[in-house]
Amino acid sequence: MSPRTIGVTEVALRDAHQSLMATRMAMEDMVGICEDIDKAGYWSVECWGGATFDACIRFLNEDPWERLRTFRELMPNSRLQMLLRGQNLLGYRHYEDMVVDKFVEKSKENGMDVFRVFDALNDPRNLEHAMAAVKNCGGHAQGTICYTTSPLHDVDGYIAQAGRLLDMGADSIALKDMAALLKPQPAYEIIRGIKDTYGDDTQINVHCHSTTGVTLVTLMKAIEAGADVVDTAISSMSLGPGHNPTESLVEMLEGTGYTTELDMDRLITIRDHFKKVRPKYAEFESETLVDTNIFLSQIPGGMLSNMESQLKAQGAGDRIDEVMREVPVVRKDAGYPPLVTPSSQIVGTQAVFNVLMGRYKVLTAEFADLMLGYYGECIGERNPDLIEQAKTQTKKQPITCRPADLLEPEWDKLRDEAEALDGFDGTDEDVLTNALFPGVAPGFFTTRAKGPISVGKNAEQLAAEKQAADSGAQAVREPITYKVSLGGRSHQVRVEPA
Amino acid sequence: MSPRTIGVTEVALRDAHQSLMATRMAMEDMVGICEDIDKAGYWSVECWGGATFDACIRFLNEDPWERLRTFRELMPNSRLQMLLRGQNLLGYRHYEDMVVDKFVEKSKENGMDVFRVFDALNDPRNLEHAMAAVKNCGGHAQGTICYTTSPLHDVDGYIAQAGRLLDMGADSIALKDMAALLKPQPAYEIIRGIKDTYGDDTQINVHCHSTTGVTLVTLMKAIEAGADVVDTAISSMSLGPGHNPTESLVEMLEGTGYTTELDMDRLITIRDHFKKVRPKYAEFESETLVDTNIFLSQIPGGMLSNMESQLKAQGAGDRIDEVMREVPVVRKDAGYPPLVTPSSQIVGTQAVFNVLMGRYKVLTAEFADLMLGYYGECIGERNPDLIEQAKTQTKKQPITCRPADLLEPEWDKLRDEAEALDGFDGTDEDVLTNALFPGVAPGFFTTRAKGPISVGKNAEQLAAEKQAADSGAQAVREPITYKVSLGGRSHQVRVEPA
Repeated sequence: MSPRTIGVTEVALRDAHQSLMATRMAMEDMVGICEDIDKAGYWSVECWGGATFDACIRFLNEDPWERLRTFRELMPNSRLQMLLRGQNLLGYRHYEDMVVDKFVEKSKENGMDVFRVFDALNDPRNLEHAMAAVKNCGGHAQGTICYTTSPLHDVDGYIAQAGRLLDMGADSIALKDMAALLKPQPAYEIIRGIKDTYGDDTQINVHCHSTTGVTLVTLMKAIEAGADVVDTAISSMSLGPGHNPTESLVEMLEGTGYTTELDMDRLITIRDHFKKVRPKYAEFESETLVDTNIFLSQIPGGMLSNMESQLKAQGAGDRIDEVMREVPVVRKDAGYPPLVTPSSQIVGTQAVFNVLMGRYKVLTAEFADLMLGYYGECIGERNPDLIEQAKTQTKKQPITCRPADLLEPEWDKLRDEAEALDGFDGTDEDVLTNALFPGVAPGFFTTRAKGPISVGKNAEQLAAEKQAADSGAQAVREPITYKVSLGGRSHQVRVEPA
Repeated sequence: MSPRTIGVTEVALRDAHQSLMATRMAMEDMVGICEDIDKAGYWSVECWGGATFDACIRFLNEDPWERLRTFRELMPNSRLQMLLRGQNLLGYRHYEDMVVDKFVEKSKENGMDVFRVFDALNDPRNLEHAMAAVKNCGGHAQGTICYTTSPLHDVDGYIAQAGRLLDMGADSIALKDMAALLKPQPAYEIIRGIKDTYGDDTQINVHCHSTTGVTLVTLMKAIEAGADVVDTAISSMSLGPGHNPTESLVEMLEGTGYTTELDMDRLITIRDHFKKVRPKYAEFESETLVDTNIFLSQIPGGMLSNMESQLKAQGAGDRIDEVMREVPVVRKDAGYPPLVTPSSQIVGTQAVFNVLMGRYKVLTAEFADLMLGYYGECIGERNPDLIEQAKTQTKKQPITCRPADLLEPEWDKLRDEAEALDGFDGTDEDVLTNALFPGVAPGFFTTRAKGPISVGKNAEQLAAEKQAADSGAQAVREPITYKVSLGGRSHQVRVEPA
């Protein structure tokens, strides 16, 4: 019998550079390889999301909608895929339903095909409207399960969650393992369980990061369990806090009952392209290669570095271990939310506050809202004492309804706000850009005309480095300390006479 | 039913630092963690072999026999394991049988337990005497299959080879994948085939490198097929050209029908120890993280860097691609030997000669001997024209017997040679050290009294670097060019004001 074909989603253009180089990759480093990506045979190409949208206007003076249109034009044969934070869209608050409709409609109109819709708390009420909006405009609605572990999370719960997503009309189910916590056996059981419960024709996409070193095995087991599509990154944009290498997946399947339809020659071209690009962004790279602490601490790498910088800012960089022990406490009090944007930041920041000021001496505004239900429901009970404290501190009442139900129609107001900005181009896209990032968009609108910039090293700088590398060294007469980027990392290096 | 326990061989003390830091790790960086390794629950601790022996006397002024005795003393509860090149012992030529007996006897006497015996050509005649010697002195004789791929290599051939090793009295079979070529499915079929053919109680150990990114999946499939013991390296000494992370293996098996008896708290202690040690040897590290080219070229990473330096020495560094295309030609003409020491060097160097001087214009002495059968038999026919050319060039006749059968007893001669050396301590161990590395041992004997040295950065240098890293870079007022070693390479780097 002929092997079953496994679809592959290439994440190099979105999650890979988000995970490896702080989402800084400039469009100029992507356009040249789009044709090969388009023709390599991927099931989809992930290329858009909250962080890429944010980075475009915050760091790259680039219109994210224009980026999307460019991808659409350069990859006419590919499904373009994005990551959508349910009712939060690409932002950090809930948006009123009409804004959700507008955003999804405009995203589809500008070229998006597959919408991977998730909610940080796995609260279905925060996904349902976005899912419906995707269906209404003819997009592929991919309902997402954020995978995490806790005393309350189990295989049956994830299977039931998949059912709720299918009830929303999900065209496929994504099992999203943002922290590399998903081990081979639970992956097998969850995916097999979903297929057995809802039918083998239920499409399942699996997204794993590679941080813990185990998840290529997880993908193998997921495939054996019936997974239809898996996410990988071309090897030159893989591993560490990122994803498993695309070529390794292809090779891994040789001789098994599974295959991909990827063109290895194209993959090699894509690999070599990003091999040249990656050094340009070396200064943004993390040094994590493999870290199984995550299984103990539950803390994703990005969240950890975030807390570390918060502590350093307070001159308490040495207290990270205390914070790591505090995170599980805070997470339990919050009802065991998965730790992913924005819940990871909310829980992490509260843990930092607890360590620096005493446990729950101060609640952050976001943590208080989380305790009062303004982000939605978690799997677990929230600590009632902290709910009371949150009420007192914020003068707000706890809610049990879908958070977005409390919102008034806001589209006209958002348009008025945008109209008032210099450089606003009159489009709904601009209205949405400002609605999503009100603190950043106004500045971007005024500088947009200057066009995109790159924060990577330019060819001249790299050439200078290479030339220097090929030529001889200058004598160093006394110790010099300087910054140098090499081998994909930025280092402070001290040179002294031998 | 309770899960099956999988044994683990920790390679941090031998192959891991051989693969990651050119075998340079000093004993002072190992002794402090031996107690934790001894109590972590490993099936065995690989800690000795040709490269470690060589590096001890060549770079570290350390007596490798003393190192072995120290390991024995510090790890009283552990099986100590070594890698033995069959009739080559730890050297690069065949030794007469009595020398093999002496070496094995002395290794056992000084504390060795498990002897992983292999031959680069998989010629059983080159293993049989060493295997018998291990049995005679009560050691664990592990017969080794060097895994490679070619038009002639197949699953049945490997199963048959395992049978020949068992006929020699092998206590276990090692499937050795030095180039990370072993994919999950063939691993499953070979191991299942061996168990089905020779019985489920046939112990199988699996050794994979991680270079291609697929081999943790290979270990999973090997375990499912019945593998008893797998090799891994503690995460802080893992990946790249090295091995899969020990902790990842442990975590990977959770919930499956398999488990390890490793103590995770000990593993974390071991990990943290080597996390501090690894930076001391950063200058020796390769930059390879994942490379699936090996599946196409068959060329292991170590062999590639070796050929690159040979080409650079000839001012032909730009011709590496030609050499990579030449290697398969040379390998075919030689009868498809596996590419592992010394066959990898012999084939690689001949390929370099072919590219630089024209195909087979000159045969290296080693390649000529290989063609004439002086290294043993390969799986394939050797090119008859080249055999003729080798005869003419060397005035030697081709042989079909076991190469070592041509050797005269040499022990007394070897002892006389050693006796004549300054610093010779009179022991058989010293005789063997000189017999194995005649070009290095004499110098070592004269300096041995000074005691071991470390080529790693010392605490002071690391502290200076850390201080510099914490204090931030000094301003650079004008371009400076200097030499810096990072990520295992020495670079000329130009720094200029940003």
